[in-house]
Amino acid sequence: MTEKGLLLVLSGPSGVGKGTVKSAIVKNKVFPFEYSVSMTTRQPRPGEINGKDYFFVTEERFKQAISQNELLEYNQYVNHYYGTPKAPVAKMLDEGKDVLLEIDVNGAQKVRQEMPDGVFIFLTPPDLHTLHTRLENRGTESEDVIMGRIKQARQEILVMQDYDYAVVNDTVANAVDHIKAIVEAEHVSVKRVIDTYRKMVKED
Amino acid sequence: MTEKGLLLVLSGPSGVGKGTVKSAIVKNKVFPFEYSVSMTTRQPRPGEINGKDYFFVTEERFKQAISQNELLEYNQYVNHYYGTPKAPVAKMLDEGKDVLLEIDVNGAQKVRQEMPDGVFIFLTPPDLHTLHTRLENRGTESEDVIMGRIKQARQEILVMQDYDYAVVNDTVANAVDHIKAIVEAEHVSVKRVIDTYRKMVKED
Repeated sequence: MTEKGLLLVLSGPSGVGKGTVKSAIVKNKVFPFEYSVSMTTRQPRPGEINGKDYFFVTEERFKQAISQNELLEYNQYVNHYYGTPKAPVAKMLDEGKDVLLEIDVNGAQKVRQEMPDGVFIFLTPPDLHTLHTRLENRGTESEDVIMGRIKQARQEILVMQDYDYAVVNDTVANAVDHIKAIVEAEHVSVKRVIDTYRKMVKED
Repeated sequence: MTEKGLLLVLSGPSGVGKGTVKSAIVKNKVFPFEYSVSMTTRQPRPGEINGKDYFFVTEERFKQAISQNELLEYNQYVNHYYGTPKAPVAKMLDEGKDVLLEIDVNGAQKVRQEMPDGVFIFLTPPDLHTLHTRLENRGTESEDVIMGRIKQARQEILVMQDYDYAVVNDTVANAVDHIKAIVEAEHVSVKRVIDTYRKMVKED
């Protein structure tokens, strides 16, 4: 009984620590998953291997990939394009492998449109979680600082509402534990397993 | 930031081992939760305490509870009524406590109507999970036995589709691990935590 793999999308505000959390999952082999290899127009750095670290392509090829809808999401940083090719991700999911994407919130929004069955995890800054305490203890911080954080929190909450899970990154170990539980739970969710059972009992 | 507790409904076909799994969760303190005390018209057995083991009531009082919609679900076994009072469950959830109900599939269906936000876990017989192997190896078992199991499996799958999670009870330890992951994941699901964040940033 091979079920489709899970597409795990790990995202959150910039600076929240997405890369560190992903590295901890990889390093400690928290659960097995496949990498998605990104496509980029930047030059390879020494030691980087085409097809393993990135697919290194020309800008012309990248723009073709965009226009032919070959990318789940893409972005431009410092004159270079970075994107996630759709076909290898779809193939790994069909083979029952879980795929982890660590991307920014704009990328995650695009992936949601392409792959609504994905598991979208929003990594939350710990001070959003503790903001209530700061609000209750007003006077210890300047009103400007508090108001600035409230404004930013409203933005974060607006983005968070399109995700499935909100994991506080208070410590990397806690965040990783929560993500592990999410993966285990999603693998036994009825919406993911019932088709396999249904196919089974039609085989007669 | 107190979020509402989770209502965990553990159910499944009779004989699947719901009681054993629940006992293992209690014994090993897998996660903290509150008991819901059932109401019954049967006589207390030696040592049973009213309000702790059960609320022991007359048939007249039980029928009043039914007609006044005081019960989440109820059932009749061997001339006695058993039911789950709604008010104490609602109170514990409001206090942020998780509540575990271990009930039969008819009871679970009624609870789903009353409390659609509950987390509904269907405990699956391991032979449903391994039925595909038996189907592939036809000839080692009589066709009647296989056909009977397929018919029963279809019923189980029909019931399962109204649940959130399907946990295979292959070993009690595995089932308990999965339920623990479900509880952890549900506690960080956006639909459960976002209201708390929203309330926080309106406090200015």
